[in-house]
Amino acid sequence: MKFSREIELRGHIVDSGILAKVMDTVVEYNGDFETEEFTLGRLKTDPSYARMQICAETPEQLTALISELRRLGVIVSGEAEVELVTVVKDKVAPEGFYSTTNHPTYVHYKDTWIPVGTMKMDALIAVDTKNMTAKCVVQGKLLPGDTVVVGEEGVRVDFPERPREIGVFEFMAGSVSSERPSRTIISRIAKELLAVKASGKKVALVGGPAIVHTGASDAVASMIREGYLDVLFAGNALATHDLESSIFGTSLGMNLATGELVSGGHRHHLYTINKIMSAGSIRAAVESGLVTRGIMYECIKNDVPYVLAGSIRDDGPLPDVIQNVMESQDAMRRHIPELGMVLMVATLLHSVAVGNLLPSHVKTICVDINPASVTKLMDRGTSQAIGLISDAGTFMPLLLEELRNQAKR
Amino acid sequence: MKFSREIELRGHIVDSGILAKVMDTVVEYNGDFETEEFTLGRLKTDPSYARMQICAETPEQLTALISELRRLGVIVSGEAEVELVTVVKDKVAPEGFYSTTNHPTYVHYKDTWIPVGTMKMDALIAVDTKNMTAKCVVQGKLLPGDTVVVGEEGVRVDFPERPREIGVFEFMAGSVSSERPSRTIISRIAKELLAVKASGKKVALVGGPAIVHTGASDAVASMIREGYLDVLFAGNALATHDLESSIFGTSLGMNLATGELVSGGHRHHLYTINKIMSAGSIRAAVESGLVTRGIMYECIKNDVPYVLAGSIRDDGPLPDVIQNVMESQDAMRRHIPELGMVLMVATLLHSVAVGNLLPSHVKTICVDINPASVTKLMDRGTSQAIGLISDAGTFMPLLLEELRNQAKR
Amino acid sequence: MKFSREIELRGHIVDSGILAKVMDTVVEYNGDFETEEFTLGRLKTDPSYARMQICAETPEQLTALISELRRLGVIVSGEAEVELVTVVKDKVAPEGFYSTTNHPTYVHYKDTWIPVGTMKMDALIAVDTKNMTAKCVVQGKLLPGDTVVVGEEGVRVDFPERPREIGVFEFMAGSVSSERPSRTIISRIAKELLAVKASGKKVALVGGPAIVHTGASDAVASMIREGYLDVLFAGNALATHDLESSIFGTSLGMNLATGELVSGGHRHHLYTINKIMSAGSIRAAVESGLVTRGIMYECIKNDVPYVLAGSIRDDGPLPDVIQNVMESQDAMRRHIPELGMVLMVATLLHSVAVGNLLPSHVKTICVDINPASVTKLMDRGTSQAIGLISDAGTFMPLLLEELRNQAKR
Amino acid sequence: MKFSREIELRGHIVDSGILAKVMDTVVEYNGDFETEEFTLGRLKTDPSYARMQICAETPEQLTALISELRRLGVIVSGEAEVELVTVVKDKVAPEGFYSTTNHPTYVHYKDTWIPVGTMKMDALIAVDTKNMTAKCVVQGKLLPGDTVVVGEEGVRVDFPERPREIGVFEFMAGSVSSERPSRTIISRIAKELLAVKASGKKVALVGGPAIVHTGASDAVASMIREGYLDVLFAGNALATHDLESSIFGTSLGMNLATGELVSGGHRHHLYTINKIMSAGSIRAAVESGLVTRGIMYECIKNDVPYVLAGSIRDDGPLPDVIQNVMESQDAMRRHIPELGMVLMVATLLHSVAVGNLLPSHVKTICVDINPASVTKLMDRGTSQAIGLISDAGTFMPLLLEELRNQAKR
Repeated sequence: MKFSREIELRGHIVDSGILAKVMDTVVEYNGDFETEEFTLGRLKTDPSYARMQICAETPEQLTALISELRRLGVIVSGEAEVELVTVVKDKVAPEGFYSTTNHPTYVHYKDTWIPVGTMKMDALIAVDTKNMTAKCVVQGKLLPGDTVVVGEEGVRVDFPERPREIGVFEFMAGSVSSERPSRTIISRIAKELLAVKASGKKVALVGGPAIVHTGASDAVASMIREGYLDVLFAGNALATHDLESSIFGTSLGMNLATGELVSGGHRHHLYTINKIMSAGSIRAAVESGLVTRGIMYECIKNDVPYVLAGSIRDDGPLPDVIQNVMESQDAMRRHIPELGMVLMVATLLHSVAVGNLLPSHVKTICVDINPASVTKLMDRGTSQAIGLISDAGTFMPLLLEELRNQAKR
Repeated sequence: MKFSREIELRGHIVDSGILAKVMDTVVEYNGDFETEEFTLGRLKTDPSYARMQICAETPEQLTALISELRRLGVIVSGEAEVELVTVVKDKVAPEGFYSTTNHPTYVHYKDTWIPVGTMKMDALIAVDTKNMTAKCVVQGKLLPGDTVVVGEEGVRVDFPERPREIGVFEFMAGSVSSERPSRTIISRIAKELLAVKASGKKVALVGGPAIVHTGASDAVASMIREGYLDVLFAGNALATHDLESSIFGTSLGMNLATGELVSGGHRHHLYTINKIMSAGSIRAAVESGLVTRGIMYECIKNDVPYVLAGSIRDDGPLPDVIQNVMESQDAMRRHIPELGMVLMVATLLHSVAVGNLLPSHVKTICVDINPASVTKLMDRGTSQAIGLISDAGTFMPLLLEELRNQAKR
Repeated sequence: MKFSREIELRGHIVDSGILAKVMDTVVEYNGDFETEEFTLGRLKTDPSYARMQICAETPEQLTALISELRRLGVIVSGEAEVELVTVVKDKVAPEGFYSTTNHPTYVHYKDTWIPVGTMKMDALIAVDTKNMTAKCVVQGKLLPGDTVVVGEEGVRVDFPERPREIGVFEFMAGSVSSERPSRTIISRIAKELLAVKASGKKVALVGGPAIVHTGASDAVASMIREGYLDVLFAGNALATHDLESSIFGTSLGMNLATGELVSGGHRHHLYTINKIMSAGSIRAAVESGLVTRGIMYECIKNDVPYVLAGSIRDDGPLPDVIQNVMESQDAMRRHIPELGMVLMVATLLHSVAVGNLLPSHVKTICVDINPASVTKLMDRGTSQAIGLISDAGTFMPLLLEELRNQAKR
Repeated sequence: MKFSREIELRGHIVDSGILAKVMDTVVEYNGDFETEEFTLGRLKTDPSYARMQICAETPEQLTALISELRRLGVIVSGEAEVELVTVVKDKVAPEGFYSTTNHPTYVHYKDTWIPVGTMKMDALIAVDTKNMTAKCVVQGKLLPGDTVVVGEEGVRVDFPERPREIGVFEFMAGSVSSERPSRTIISRIAKELLAVKASGKKVALVGGPAIVHTGASDAVASMIREGYLDVLFAGNALATHDLESSIFGTSLGMNLATGELVSGGHRHHLYTINKIMSAGSIRAAVESGLVTRGIMYECIKNDVPYVLAGSIRDDGPLPDVIQNVMESQDAMRRHIPELGMVLMVATLLHSVAVGNLLPSHVKTICVDINPASVTKLMDRGTSQAIGLISDAGTFMPLLLEELRNQAKR
């Protein structure tokens, strides 16, 4: 074959399956490769290394092939610098713009490999050529004058390896199952959560109203009060039903202590919204003594920040709910850099929204009774996500119990 | 029992189960009733009539009991007039406000029964005392000076009867099943849809992006072009993937003609949004010849209005997407009064949002591969909804075929 | 109308919805009714009474109508006696045979109302005219000489009332939900289970292998040891994986303490079967000290009987498994008369099979992570069944905890 | 490392991921490897070749590692012969017996590699040392005198490669999705089915009763009549409801032409069983003119063999149903060698049972409305299976249409 280019691979490329994906891609594109150097890491913790010559029949074929390999994290030898094009119109990107993965990314510019800040999927890379910095920018935020990367040359991605020490994220990686030993897994999740906290990172909960309906809000409120959760991402429904349960003892009119519908209870969520509206905000309602318990109460009392993102389903909504969806994304984005773990419980909409904003190194746990929701959330190109088909109402109390037990040790 | 009040019931109160619910409620509240008059409709089409004395031990018990009965559509003899209270603060309702059902409702004011306009669930009733009109107002739209109904006295609800002529909405009412003869049901849905059109009412589609992913967009585009659909409610994703399939032949990077992922296809949806952003709008993209086929193309070409409601999951979004969720509700609400039928296909978010706005007489068909979605949509207190657990990619082409066959006759 | 017949209804016919169903059926069949006497029970616990004249235009119409009403438990005044026909050929019933419901049933024979023993759905009624007894016989067990009921005349059914004291079976009756307060419901199930035990009735578990996979077997084993469960209905898979977990510490090769797959673990279930085969039976394996813990171990040690019914999926099977499906039904049937409650957990096949054998008064609780399974099990015409979409691995330990707490009081 | 053994790999080992799995396993077991020779197939159709030295610290570690590698199809250089042990007791295997995969397998005996017949998972290998043949034997069929393989030495497995020409089985391999272009996939399945037929192999349908309930039986009956299906695996329910629909026009009492429940229809399936019982067999019922259409009718008329396997859920059962589950497995097993493709539609029980018997080279298509069923069926270690979450009632008619269109060409 007449055209070729040298690439390098480093890390746990064998057991992560990256080397296999590279070879597979070459065969897929009718290319060829020649291994120039290969060292296998001796111990599980040692990295491996490969240097290969990638070959193709035409320059076009070679470019397409190399472009695919880049997304797998290969280092292209003699990499040229990124091509930058200046945006001329609000929200309109130049043709052929580079669209990001959620993995750590670097751009080659003026002989330097600049790390790209605030990684997320499906964004553009804007380079500040003066300060030699780079960051992700979403289409809706592009401004005239932004200089963004076009093409793939000069962009390098660190494809995440499956780490070898066996944590819950490793042995369950990528799997969605209802046939796993539930308490064993809960125990390991608790361990990971405590490790994330110990490392100084934060833990966020993305939660849907079923947390309240299934009676898991006491457990969640305790988790906030006891410092296991640092940020809450939710919507109007979770907050409304949590506040309803504090004010009326019901959730969508159902008495949570008995499971029975209460006479006239169908009005409770509207009356709750009205009371908060009248108080002015959730904080005001807590401070006035109207709200005395629950998830939102603990958020206020413990200064745990929350983002209540609006949706077209909302009644009311509560005064704290952000009605503009792009502003909601901005509000959520501000909390992302501090996060080490995200628990997604019983909400598809908010979980997908938060998942879109996460870099691939944030550990993600999806818990939903609906396997379709879990499956959808797991399709995010990260080896750091695990899915559990379970019931919030039994899962959260058992998780709290585990956290308390392990924290004592 | 010492306290009592007379009520009347009229219509298909027996076979609709309304009479049973009334009796059940009386027993539930430890009350009593005495039937003063009862006439059973002889033929299926004849209405029945009942007049009863409802009794209780205390006035409070009687009030609670009568309040529940009202929601079943009973007429309380000697009904007083509605109590109206004036709103004094933006979005804050008076204590004890009346919260609506989605059934036809009347308020008793100055000796007149005024019909309430634009019925929807979970709203308030504002009465224009000067013009003697009334309408539903949602909490988020309350303005100082609005006079709204408080309590239940003077409000009458027409509880919907299960009609006796057997249509698909009758024999499947309330059921969610994957074990029904699919083509038989499709054929009957087609018949109902044509009947709705013939009656001068409009048909709306509420659709999710799986319509495009499962290859149903050709069928939907044809249904728009051939006049079977009059309004489209959707989000950024359906529109983006539909436009992507027109521009790139793919949906989320998958070639719809082969089912295979296309090299570099992961960028297509972002490139699509960028091209529409650059054109300025979907209409502009169609008029410039960039978009030449598909659902959005047919909407533009056939002047079928669409509402693209934004969500926090959105990339971009497209310039036509409404970013404020309350404005999205307003935009959808404008189309509701003309509708006779709504097809909800493969979207939970948008279906629930539209369902919240619908009066109970609009026929609703929910089609989703996920039984949890269908079940959630069916919990709306209407006998006009049917749920089908089916695959958009096979359902929509078969529905189109049936519509064409029946329209020919 | 020219033809008529008198019927009576007694019991909680109003709040059970039976009266409504009777009226609805009359209208459905274009008949008419005239209420001759009606007394409403004053208190929740008082029965009501109705006597009505049912009318139709033709004798055929009246017969069809009365036939439907019988299934709702109405008493037909001046009921004739049952028609009995003698079976002449193995497993072949006479034309027009009566097929049973699962409700208490009586046959009118020689001026006596004989109760029918061992009620189950979809069987025939055989009358022993000499001893004046009657019982259900399934088609596959019909023998020449059996005298079975033909037609509907002379058969009376006690349609089950929804009882008015509110237990978990009442407030959740017929519903399948994943949005209920899980621990509240678990607590109420525990209360009912203890009440069933206290009344001298037995509790059966119908269980699938996911009990073992999800790590719930410790909880189930404890429930057996502590006397909460009296009978086990399961198959080859539950027993094999339970025994595997005792012998190898794994379930389908997965280490239950860590959730990880064990090297060579795919052979464990076959090796387990082989060891039991070699021992001769599960009892022998327990007695020899091979099996030292788990569900089957506790069954043997505590003399809790089990039926392991074979299926075409089985490996092995274990020597205790019944390979003939009709013999399996017989073996299960022998335990039915003593049962007051059945817990069905994580198995559709065995749950449907047991459900088929149950009279309608046995309380049934279906727990499955798969909503389709729960829905299917709830379609059994009983008001004594509740469905929970939950995870065996979290549900069973919480149920055990509740049972222990409540038993202490 | 002190202990090592040479292995070879041949075929599409790169793009099949086999090479990657081999490397991964070595790292997993803390071993090492050294590549002695490696040739990459130039074109997609060319095989690759690798020879490696596998190293470990201890002989035990090496044995465990080599044992795992064998299951991936590696050829161990200087392979010794198989160890054979004679069975001494009915159904009891010797300790440490070899348990099979479903891939083509060879045993090394007297200098010959003997192919193992009737491959299936989870069986033993019995070698006929006189005739130099070998075959799979399941535990329940072991007889004294059988000589079965113990350990892993001398057993070689052909791990299936993902073929490179892109068929529907390749681009969808292993995936379960409800977001694929349904008609595109149906068209490709039709193409594969016709190719299987053209190659002289047979196509089997494994079907559940939902085929009848969803109205797909006309399509299936046509597929049998027109020669697209050669074998039917089903149970009592499919046959009963199919026969019910021929005799009464209903399925479980539902009129398939209208979707409505028929008065008295709950008896139809029992009456159907009784009529067939009276006739003596399904064939007799067809020949007597009692049954004139449907799936079973076409089986009889077109000499398409069927196996009706009994289950503990069965009413009746029909005289053609095999009541012993092991005999059912035998009956199914007889048809396996001729099969090239199996369509599994709307039944989990029968699909798992047939899947257990299949060698890995038989193409398998699972269609079910329940994603949990599809997922369970896909976990069978074959790259020849695809899963579709779809509705039998819409899928089968569209498949028939495609088959007819493509057959015409």
